Amino acid sequence: MIFEIKRDSDFSIHNLPFGIFSSAGRSPRVGVAIGESILDLQALADLGMFPQIDKAVFAQNSLNAFIALGKTSTSKLRLDLQRWLLEEHPILRENPAVLVSQNEATMHLPIHIGDYTDFYSSIEHATNVGKMFRDPANALLPNWRHIPVGYHGRASSVVLSGTPVQRPWGQAKGKDDVLPKFQPSARLDFELETGFIIGKDTHLGQGINTAEADEYIFGKVLLNDWSARDIQAWEYVPLGPFLAKNFATSISPWVVTLEALAPFRVAGPVQEPAVLPYLEYAGDQNLDIQLNVVLETAVGVSTEICRSNFKYMYWNMAQQLAHHTVNGCNVRVGDLMGSGTISGPTPDSYGSLLELAWSGTQPITLADGSQRSFIENGDTVVMRGFGEKDGVRVGFGEVRGKILPAHK
Amino acid sequence: MIFEIKRDSDFSIHNLPFGIFSSAGRSPRVGVAIGESILDLQALADLGMFPQIDKAVFAQNSLNAFIALGKTSTSKLRLDLQRWLLEEHPILRENPAVLVSQNEATMHLPIHIGDYTDFYSSIEHATNVGKMFRDPANALLPNWRHIPVGYHGRASSVVLSGTPVQRPWGQAKGKDDVLPKFQPSARLDFELETGFIIGKDTHLGQGINTAEADEYIFGKVLLNDWSARDIQAWEYVPLGPFLAKNFATSISPWVVTLEALAPFRVAGPVQEPAVLPYLEYAGDQNLDIQLNVVLETAVGVSTEICRSNFKYMYWNMAQQLAHHTVNGCNVRVGDLMGSGTISGPTPDSYGSLLELAWSGTQPITLADGSQRSFIENGDTVVMRGFGEKDGVRVGFGEVRGKILPAHK
Repeated sequence: MIFEIKRDSDFSIHNLPFGIFSSAGRSPRVGVAIGESILDLQALADLGMFPQIDKAVFAQNSLNAFIALGKTSTSKLRLDLQRWLLEEHPILRENPAVLVSQNEATMHLPIHIGDYTDFYSSIEHATNVGKMFRDPANALLPNWRHIPVGYHGRASSVVLSGTPVQRPWGQAKGKDDVLPKFQPSARLDFELETGFIIGKDTHLGQGINTAEADEYIFGKVLLNDWSARDIQAWEYVPLGPFLAKNFATSISPWVVTLEALAPFRVAGPVQEPAVLPYLEYAGDQNLDIQLNVVLETAVGVSTEICRSNFKYMYWNMAQQLAHHTVNGCNVRVGDLMGSGTISGPTPDSYGSLLELAWSGTQPITLADGSQRSFIENGDTVVMRGFGEKDGVRVGFGEVRGKILPAHK
Repeated sequence: MIFEIKRDSDFSIHNLPFGIFSSAGRSPRVGVAIGESILDLQALADLGMFPQIDKAVFAQNSLNAFIALGKTSTSKLRLDLQRWLLEEHPILRENPAVLVSQNEATMHLPIHIGDYTDFYSSIEHATNVGKMFRDPANALLPNWRHIPVGYHGRASSVVLSGTPVQRPWGQAKGKDDVLPKFQPSARLDFELETGFIIGKDTHLGQGINTAEADEYIFGKVLLNDWSARDIQAWEYVPLGPFLAKNFATSISPWVVTLEALAPFRVAGPVQEPAVLPYLEYAGDQNLDIQLNVVLETAVGVSTEICRSNFKYMYWNMAQQLAHHTVNGCNVRVGDLMGSGTISGPTPDSYGSLLELAWSGTQPITLADGSQRSFIENGDTVVMRGFGEKDGVRVGFGEVRGKILPAHK
């Protein structure tokens, strides 16, 4: 075999996700992950393997130009790669340098993000938050079952997995404080999310209906929506989260295509009351993607603190996109849409420390016996996800981020 | 004179704002407004007038590359232009084609906007909204006097003045409705704002303090933050406005530099209680910019419906920028920061129809006797603004948008 794939590899022949990498002093370019290697698409293009495609799209520091070719081109290219890998195409055998070890590569942010939107689409998460901060008897707000609630996030501070995140300073006001204080966040949290990446532009005024949504979704990444709960609680009324979120959002480096995720499509939960017609959809629109979160302490003790699944989401991506554009709002290739925190029905499936430790009232215990209500300096949060069915495994790799102390 | 300037021109020799224009079939390029003309900077560069600057920055469809040169370069260039115009530099006299009539030019969106943030910094506006929708006795929320409240808006749907805006569809739920309805917005509104444009990148983790803020602000535009009040009321809890705003935001074509606005600096209102130290500032940080809003009906009847002034703002730009970055959030050249609706103390100075017609309870009367509680199809909203002092006038021109009927 010209490439090797371990049985539990996220990057099986069924996956072939796209990313931006550099190696050996060469400039960033488009690559495809396969096992523990990366297929260098710029090199393959230079060897004449993609005669239909302008080679310039592969010599970029983002996937945007490649994605903008459209799925007719990008899906065909992915299937061609799959065939060439399986049949050990002579070009691959004769040019071993087109396969680069992931260990020798530096990954880069895969997309230039025009706009970043974050949804709030897990009913378990919204209910948990409502119970803690509002009314346990009426945890869900009245609009929640009618609207895939979302808000705009900050695109500039979306960072690649591995980028350390400094604990933010900010205003917070404790229940008994007369005035707010300015201090490093004392309630720093993660949110386990996935994100999808827009694959096709719309113009202003053009809606995307649920049946068309797949055309407009290129693929998915893992996303950690870092959140400073104390800053959030004080700032968020009436215009929503701002500084509590925009200090950093981490995403995984490999964009897994919607096609690669097709085997994991499952039905979503029943939506009651019925949604408005523009939010109705057909087919299986949820995805059975197993997710987990590991917390690594500064000295390297790892504890799995959450197991969840993307299939739990109440609102699916087609509904999110239909809603986002129903007023005519335009989307552009490379826009990032976060799912919202992915909490499941059981306490070990909650997708944030806020929920896992129930707002600090039930600290979780790590493998070394220490406890956590929120993230401590030196902690690293690692999220992983994959689909697995009938021997086919398609994974995301990981999104990882270490928390550094706040500046002095 | 090689150029002519009317006494009441916004584009006096003291102004020299930057924009992107095209004319006579030539591609978009950087220009400077003077009187009723545009000075073609690409043409001047081709004539060798800016030997220190890479000519490519003028042959762009956005100002970003030009702005990224830094104020040392851009301020000097502006002062050079001012001198050359005043002394009727031979190059200008010998090359009349470097001056293009504004009537013969097409303007383009002046900046590529990475991120768009909108603030909520008028105490009169926040109080009015609070009175209407929350508690008249406690109109201001507890955080308002401590935080220059802001939220992230949508960059993709920021459009140039003159772009028609289609009435958006969306969910709304009346007080007596059991379920939300899906319909064209029935409470479409404008918000009179200005926006400032970031002139210098920061890196993630780097704050901008109030004393440094001017370095990071290139200039300002007029901004109409179109708002669908019925959609907003139903969607905004708990994550803020989303579809109520992101169908369109209009900005004026000419970016007026901070230097040109310096003569209009005035003291801001006293802030009580005292702000946290990171929000303290020195000097005059408000700007005396006279603003008005004219509503033109479909048949062309114009009525001035608001006169306000940017000097009323409670939170100034330096505080907004210091707050936005105090958690380490990075900014990039071309980011747009909206001021929030600029309402003054008197009812005729309120910066939105929501306030002018007090949520529909006191419709305003137009020059033709018709009334408005919200914007009707065919109405055009025009905002204008200028500073004037000691015979020096520096203006923004206008931001204009016509409301088209919702799609079927």
